[in-house]
Amino acid sequence: MSKTKRPASTSTSIHDLISHRWSPRAFENRAVEPEKLRALFEAARWAASSYNAQPWYYIVGTKDDPTNYQRVLDSFVEFNQGWAKSAPVVGLSVAQLKFGHNNEPNSHAFHDVGQASATLQIQAEALGLSVHQMAGILPDKAREIFKIPEGFAVVAGFAIGYEGDPKTLPDGLREKEVAPRERKALDSFVFSGAWGHTSPIVAKK
Amino acid sequence: MSKTKRPASTSTSIHDLISHRWSPRAFENRAVEPEKLRALFEAARWAASSYNAQPWYYIVGTKDDPTNYQRVLDSFVEFNQGWAKSAPVVGLSVAQLKFGHNNEPNSHAFHDVGQASATLQIQAEALGLSVHQMAGILPDKAREIFKIPEGFAVVAGFAIGYEGDPKTLPDGLREKEVAPRERKALDSFVFSGAWGHTSPIVAKK
Repeated sequence: MSKTKRPASTSTSIHDLISHRWSPRAFENRAVEPEKLRALFEAARWAASSYNAQPWYYIVGTKDDPTNYQRVLDSFVEFNQGWAKSAPVVGLSVAQLKFGHNNEPNSHAFHDVGQASATLQIQAEALGLSVHQMAGILPDKAREIFKIPEGFAVVAGFAIGYEGDPKTLPDGLREKEVAPRERKALDSFVFSGAWGHTSPIVAKK
Repeated sequence: MSKTKRPASTSTSIHDLISHRWSPRAFENRAVEPEKLRALFEAARWAASSYNAQPWYYIVGTKDDPTNYQRVLDSFVEFNQGWAKSAPVVGLSVAQLKFGHNNEPNSHAFHDVGQASATLQIQAEALGLSVHQMAGILPDKAREIFKIPEGFAVVAGFAIGYEGDPKTLPDGLREKEVAPRERKALDSFVFSGAWGHTSPIVAKK
């Protein structure tokens, strides 16, 4: 099955890699080529970060290594395990909470992991792959399984693969998979001058 | 001046919008077309977020509105004001710290603002624009100036515009502007099985 076209209903034209990116729960039973997978993390590598601290780390499991794949899956909440197990690749993002150069707290650690993961997702889109990130993970269990040291926080889980047929999903999830994609209105979150004052940049024309 | 080609030295091929994205400090004295600016925030709008909470907010100032532009600039630390004032657009990102649906803390608020801002930056790249984000801001001052309510945190500053000539920068910054872009090695942050074990996906070939 090829990638579904489910472009966002944008208020102005944006790049296809951004408007077509979404987070499916159905994945094809098909491995991701190692070279493509490498490119995803290479893309994450070049994200921007505060003091160029690059606080991002990733733990990855692929189905050709069933033991390690299962260890990642075990770090997800049960609901997410239910659908993520169809993906050929699963993983966790981890944030380094202090700066290496002075050991002070990095208040942008989660922010910058988010930047790296968003960049990874856009690279995935460019390669015809899909990524579904999830907050529903078990950070303490992940820390124990993977021996994640103090000073690092488990941030999010993710599933990567080729988008699959929504029909393979159970009731409830199937409907969500094909429902229109929704976002709050642009004029509700871009302000100028004072909080709550819609910027003229995004005001309805 | 057209956009400098300063592609990242990647270990494998990634999309141009990602490898060419970087954060200049020199900007051309040239306004950003309103339609392009709108597209940047529209791109941010379609980022992924935990529970689709979309915790991102932006406060923006453009030079054609000098009072509000200055209010944003005043929210940056002095060092950043020094170079950012050459940019035609400056702004702040803000995170909503609790979920709207249950008023519980959203531990991914900063993470998801990071995702939105990274998406904004890639859209900027697609339009020939550059974005420089900065952690060096004065959150308390910004809160006061813009009357940002409780439950929201000021996250980061940013400058947007067309990349300028590094020669316009003072000594020190000029050298940084043209220095090679650097990142930690891919095999130092992508693990499998256990913390610190480089994943075969990214192992040196």
